[in-house]
Amino acid sequence: MKIELETILPEQIENRSFAIIESELPKDRKIDALQKPVIKRVIHTTADFDYLDNLKFSEHAVEKTLAALKSGACIVTDTNMAKAGVHKASLEKLGGALYCYMADEDVAAEAKRQGCTRAAVCMEKAAKLDNPLIIAVGNAPTALVRICELISEGKLKPALVIGAPVGFVNVVRSKELIMQAGVDYIVAAGRKGGSNVAAAICNALIYMATGER
Amino acid sequence: MKIELETILPEQIENRSFAIIESELPKDRKIDALQKPVIKRVIHTTADFDYLDNLKFSEHAVEKTLAALKSGACIVTDTNMAKAGVHKASLEKLGGALYCYMADEDVAAEAKRQGCTRAAVCMEKAAKLDNPLIIAVGNAPTALVRICELISEGKLKPALVIGAPVGFVNVVRSKELIMQAGVDYIVAAGRKGGSNVAAAICNALIYMATGER
Repeated sequence: MKIELETILPEQIENRSFAIIESELPKDRKIDALQKPVIKRVIHTTADFDYLDNLKFSEHAVEKTLAALKSGACIVTDTNMAKAGVHKASLEKLGGALYCYMADEDVAAEAKRQGCTRAAVCMEKAAKLDNPLIIAVGNAPTALVRICELISEGKLKPALVIGAPVGFVNVVRSKELIMQAGVDYIVAAGRKGGSNVAAAICNALIYMATGER
Repeated sequence: MKIELETILPEQIENRSFAIIESELPKDRKIDALQKPVIKRVIHTTADFDYLDNLKFSEHAVEKTLAALKSGACIVTDTNMAKAGVHKASLEKLGGALYCYMADEDVAAEAKRQGCTRAAVCMEKAAKLDNPLIIAVGNAPTALVRICELISEGKLKPALVIGAPVGFVNVVRSKELIMQAGVDYIVAAGRKGGSNVAAAICNALIYMATGER
């Protein structure tokens, strides 16, 4: 049996999807031209148009992040799942690298010692990287909170924080805090988010920087 | 600076989250006791209560899948991102294993030859496994369609198909097809879904089978 669906070549599926998303965006809504590819890619990843309203950008966040990516920024994610979703090959074309420290043994040991989450300790480890840094948080509000603390202590100066943890405990508050931390951000306000959302935001920025999509 | 949030131990965050979800479920809604942990874990992963209505289960799907998991079922995912989200150690405790073939070179070559997606070819590869099989699709409607074809050709007999691709092209239709394919399923009907949703469904089932959460 061969099942026939809408005939479309694999490589055209993404373009078609983005055209459908574009056609369903509210016509009376003015969307910043640099923010739009990010918003559309998150909707593409979630099929959830709530992100049109949920996504919050600090001023010139996209423009500044594209410059950082073009100068070899690294991305640190708070989950291996988000890491798996980021298009590593394209990031590497830009001279960047992709890290997640969640499964590292030293991180587990230090988290136990401090009585905090591994995600928080990962952010301390990220603070030691030399490259311009994009931190993508798709899971742990504690990671976002630790970033705020490290910034205020002068120990961390990321080019961008992607704040997209999902959930019910301290999530909304952690996103409010990062938006007041004096750092450039792209945040999925409210409870929604996830590793997929964090990865989609990274990919949108990477593709804009490489010009490949 | 030390930022104080709601005081909660890392290991208690998940329990608290599930209690909040439970408290926000509509009181007048009767939810099947075996389906409920699956529904709640997907809401936990997405913060999206739409899944209370979106998730569709074939009759006794959960019960039968738990039996399959306890007899060493393998899980094949259609993305490495979904694979990264499945709790592998718990699955291995049950005697199962976790696979994703998307990055395999032979898959890419065969997809090019057939002019189809790599995801579809992955399903052909999965059909060759001997263990009871759970196929978790979080991305590619073409994978779901290929599963329907392989089932109808008598080449594939999965214990469960998790149908949670997300998106705009052929996604809704592919989910309708799998629900008519004569196989046990858990499907996120409509456009929504994702690798995170597919992984969450896997994890809910695994945790029920191990009894660890």
